[in-house]
Amino acid sequence: MNDFEFCSPTDFVFGKGVESRAGALCAAQGARRVLVVYGGGSAVRSGLLGRLESSLEAAGLVWDAIGGVQPNPMDDKVYEGIRQARETGTDFVLAVGGGSVIDTAKAIAVGVPYVGDFWDFFAGKAVPEVALPVGVVLTIPAAGSEGSGNSVITKGDGLRKLSLRTDRLLRPVFALMNPEVTYTLPAYQTACGVVDMVVHILERYFSPSAGTEVTDRLCEGLLAAITALGPKVLGAPCDYDLRANLMWAGTLAHNGLCGTGRTEDWASHFMEHEVSALYGVAHGAGLAVIVPAWMAYVSRQKPERAAQMAVRVFGFDPAMPMEAAARYGVEQLKLFFLRMGMPVSFRQMGVEHPDVDLLVRKLHEDKGSAIGGYVRLTADDTRAIYELAR
Amino acid sequence: MNDFEFCSPTDFVFGKGVESRAGALCAAQGARRVLVVYGGGSAVRSGLLGRLESSLEAAGLVWDAIGGVQPNPMDDKVYEGIRQARETGTDFVLAVGGGSVIDTAKAIAVGVPYVGDFWDFFAGKAVPEVALPVGVVLTIPAAGSEGSGNSVITKGDGLRKLSLRTDRLLRPVFALMNPEVTYTLPAYQTACGVVDMVVHILERYFSPSAGTEVTDRLCEGLLAAITALGPKVLGAPCDYDLRANLMWAGTLAHNGLCGTGRTEDWASHFMEHEVSALYGVAHGAGLAVIVPAWMAYVSRQKPERAAQMAVRVFGFDPAMPMEAAARYGVEQLKLFFLRMGMPVSFRQMGVEHPDVDLLVRKLHEDKGSAIGGYVRLTADDTRAIYELAR
Repeated sequence: MNDFEFCSPTDFVFGKGVESRAGALCAAQGARRVLVVYGGGSAVRSGLLGRLESSLEAAGLVWDAIGGVQPNPMDDKVYEGIRQARETGTDFVLAVGGGSVIDTAKAIAVGVPYVGDFWDFFAGKAVPEVALPVGVVLTIPAAGSEGSGNSVITKGDGLRKLSLRTDRLLRPVFALMNPEVTYTLPAYQTACGVVDMVVHILERYFSPSAGTEVTDRLCEGLLAAITALGPKVLGAPCDYDLRANLMWAGTLAHNGLCGTGRTEDWASHFMEHEVSALYGVAHGAGLAVIVPAWMAYVSRQKPERAAQMAVRVFGFDPAMPMEAAARYGVEQLKLFFLRMGMPVSFRQMGVEHPDVDLLVRKLHEDKGSAIGGYVRLTADDTRAIYELAR
Repeated sequence: MNDFEFCSPTDFVFGKGVESRAGALCAAQGARRVLVVYGGGSAVRSGLLGRLESSLEAAGLVWDAIGGVQPNPMDDKVYEGIRQARETGTDFVLAVGGGSVIDTAKAIAVGVPYVGDFWDFFAGKAVPEVALPVGVVLTIPAAGSEGSGNSVITKGDGLRKLSLRTDRLLRPVFALMNPEVTYTLPAYQTACGVVDMVVHILERYFSPSAGTEVTDRLCEGLLAAITALGPKVLGAPCDYDLRANLMWAGTLAHNGLCGTGRTEDWASHFMEHEVSALYGVAHGAGLAVIVPAWMAYVSRQKPERAAQMAVRVFGFDPAMPMEAAARYGVEQLKLFFLRMGMPVSFRQMGVEHPDVDLLVRKLHEDKGSAIGGYVRLTADDTRAIYELAR
């Protein structure tokens, strides 16, 4: 087991109607002027935004809003938010949405007090030291950004999708999680979210570190829960317990718990970020395409982790050879993605002719000559994986 | 799934040599004068206390110390600590030890700024609003107090063992966890700790709440890990990974994660507290005696949870009747405790003639006429369980 530091200070407030507590929780953080960040019109139409604004006003807070954040969020909205926040004197950023909205809110929060260009932090040219506090009202269980210290933003010129990772600075101070607001999520978006949370666990589960039985078991338990619940929720989108369990699983998949004591991988996420930046596909769908190919490829060299997953999550006979177990694990994962209605190849995703040369070149420009923690992957490897995913 | 609020803000710093960071972490909290609370001489003899004091001094901090905290910690040491802390102007309490030391440190921390008797909080006569910050250097993985907001203290006159539970006030600001300092823990103490953490999970797993698949899976994963690792560590007490996994499991068993979304039980703990207060036995040993009897008794009415544990943790055939599964689960748990060298009856614990009348009377005086969340237990029930444990 590796040495580690784990601190997940976010106050997770979970249950029916919890959005009514937004104002009081912002005020408890010393907020006076809140910038509400949201995405499309669904937060308006559902009445959620109206309920939040009532809650803020009841707590004596002044608020402004910036909407229109898109999936795979772009830098232009961040610049707009930073400008608006500075003009109004925002001292608290409240994200109302899923990962794209939360990541945009975090980028605004870290950009407002910085004299330079916020992109410096994402490009690795500067390390942030201060940020406005961020609160979250979660509407899409997927990215886990409500419990993480990370943000992923795409640069409009050149489509570079980069992430900023902080230990604690950008972890939301609170996350209001009402499973009922996810009842209206379309099946496709629900499925994309489920894939994303599964992969957040796998990125940590596929680790070169040994001796992490406790963390392994947590990962396997979450994977068992999500793979059991995921298909059920597609058939019963207004089942509270199903929606609630998926929502909580999405947070635990990405608040760092599943990585305690070991080196993480993240090759699949990096490979997918190039795909969604280039083709504008949903992140979850991109992952469903990339991850089985990646897992099959790395398992040829190191079958251990896919094999353990096959045995402990998918019930494969532990007496069978490890290579057989690994192959079974990969196929079960694919089947699960298919049951969720996801594509598992570029073709199924509607990308008939992926530009593998460009994907590989941009990937290694952004991330260096080798990526991944479980198996180190050079351009030859990532090319082979993109090809395998055709 | 029930509504819940979960916030575990403790900074868990885990690995070899982490005690050297104590001074810097106290200073980062604004500490100037630290009261170090510890137990017996082992912290001195091992050199741990010396290393901590060097770390505090290197950070420019002044420190005082109070040692001699005993297992099943008593109120007299708390009063002594409060007096000493007030005299010296302590602004930070650093616990160096296991649950007894940490609980004493927490009671001191909450008692110092209170004008009345700190026992008011444990007796339920007052609710604490402020406390000094508490840091932890963990030496015994067991009680999970390093990640919880709770404290358990025994009142010397009348041997009332009561707990104070807070959502966040008494959660340590940091916990330094070096598995190497646990190499010298005797087998018996190691085993008592393992029992304690297993039962912290069971108290939450045996819940009347439905629809908590994610939390169930986390509990089952931790139980699977602990029951696999526990017996191994007795044979290899200096195996880093074994010690590290048990240490981390002990924290996660009791920081609240395993209870998210459901009503907890705690009848076993309440029943055991009476036993250790009366007979001075180790808490873990007392739990190993009480819990199987309790589980067998409640499973007659409600076999569901013991049955699910039998299937998912101990590999029982899910096609068999639930009652058979529950019985199997109880017996496997007993076998596990026996493998850890623990007693599973009063007699095996050296208490030939438990005063069941007194235990039942004091239990319900302290805790009311009915206890437990999974099955509500009146005096008739708890009497039957104590008898079953003879």
